[in-house]
Amino acid sequence: MERHFDEELDQLKNQILRMGVMAQGAIERAVGALGKRDRAVAQEVIDQDKAVDELENRVDQMCLDLLVRRQPMAIDLRFVAMAMKISTDIERIADLAVDIAQRVLELNGEPLLKPLRDIPLLSRLAQEMVDEVLLAYVRCDVEIAKKVILRDAQADELRDEVQQELIQEYIKKDGLCAPRAIPLLLVARHLERICDHATNIAEDVIFLVNAKIVRHRVREFEE
Amino acid sequence: MERHFDEELDQLKNQILRMGVMAQGAIERAVGALGKRDRAVAQEVIDQDKAVDELENRVDQMCLDLLVRRQPMAIDLRFVAMAMKISTDIERIADLAVDIAQRVLELNGEPLLKPLRDIPLLSRLAQEMVDEVLLAYVRCDVEIAKKVILRDAQADELRDEVQQELIQEYIKKDGLCAPRAIPLLLVARHLERICDHATNIAEDVIFLVNAKIVRHRVREFEE
Repeated sequence: MERHFDEELDQLKNQILRMGVMAQGAIERAVGALGKRDRAVAQEVIDQDKAVDELENRVDQMCLDLLVRRQPMAIDLRFVAMAMKISTDIERIADLAVDIAQRVLELNGEPLLKPLRDIPLLSRLAQEMVDEVLLAYVRCDVEIAKKVILRDAQADELRDEVQQELIQEYIKKDGLCAPRAIPLLLVARHLERICDHATNIAEDVIFLVNAKIVRHRVREFEE
Repeated sequence: MERHFDEELDQLKNQILRMGVMAQGAIERAVGALGKRDRAVAQEVIDQDKAVDELENRVDQMCLDLLVRRQPMAIDLRFVAMAMKISTDIERIADLAVDIAQRVLELNGEPLLKPLRDIPLLSRLAQEMVDEVLLAYVRCDVEIAKKVILRDAQADELRDEVQQELIQEYIKKDGLCAPRAIPLLLVARHLERICDHATNIAEDVIFLVNAKIVRHRVREFEE
């Protein structure tokens, strides 16, 4: 018995959401591992990345299959085509969680240079942005997508704060702490880049709904 | 008079190649600006990024339009669908050239910490990989794509060398040089990430030709 098209679109949404949940879990575990200098959890995050990669492949196959069999038009076409772009972004988000886990391994169980303050905030922001943007996608909700785009500036600020503090207060005062400071600086950059990917997805959602490309036009919302 | 489908595919290829040429030019000018601490050229790279963004939008529109009007099948469908994924990667490559240009601005015209040696090598590698992978795409040539994937390990090595040298030989010995060392360390990371994007495109080319997803399976080629 042939499935309905709507049912197939729901399946596609579910796979995208599943990818998102996995990527978010990876961020959470990687940053948790950083706080506890837990090399075993960091290694787990690295090892489990394969599952997200496989899901990306499955999403792409589903999309190509839908394009061939259903030849969707208008918003349905854009929904399926954008799923292929969005799957790339989610896969990169999971890769960035792997990057964070690798920084944990580099720290090699040494005590943290300073108590983590901005990094957990940035991690929460990144996870929330990923969460919200996937909701925006499955609901085709432009308002949620716009809010995600506006939050990206906060991520930039938090990253700059982490970076400035580490350079000015730690590395410049004692160069020997660099091997413990630079991984933290990079973690802040990885997290900010996760927020960039959430922003990319938000732009794709707006295009999907409005058939109007807003990509790279953040300023319009801010004015 | 209606155009032939082949002609439209050629147009799509040309737009992708144009994006690639622009992204490569941006890398070259950004790294050149780094060598000469030329803030004006760095600012130009940042300002000109809009053009690549617009081209990404145009490529996506062309692809959606082709999918609707031509309803391509098999390799043609994959060619068009992959163009949308590849345009994302090229746009990110151009963004990374902007990231390099921003590091030049951060260095604020100060003399370089050390003569650049590995960074120009890494830049050349990145530009060659982008060049080769776009050739692989327009020619649907799996062999070229596989070679690009194999070169990625070299990029990782060069990045690690730059990073180790900056931390061990400079920052650890004198923390005060951090504001001049960390931008260089980040430039090496930006360049290595450009190579990652070239690798992603290579994987998409192999999928496009073989209808078999090789993504995240680099090891197969290395064995």
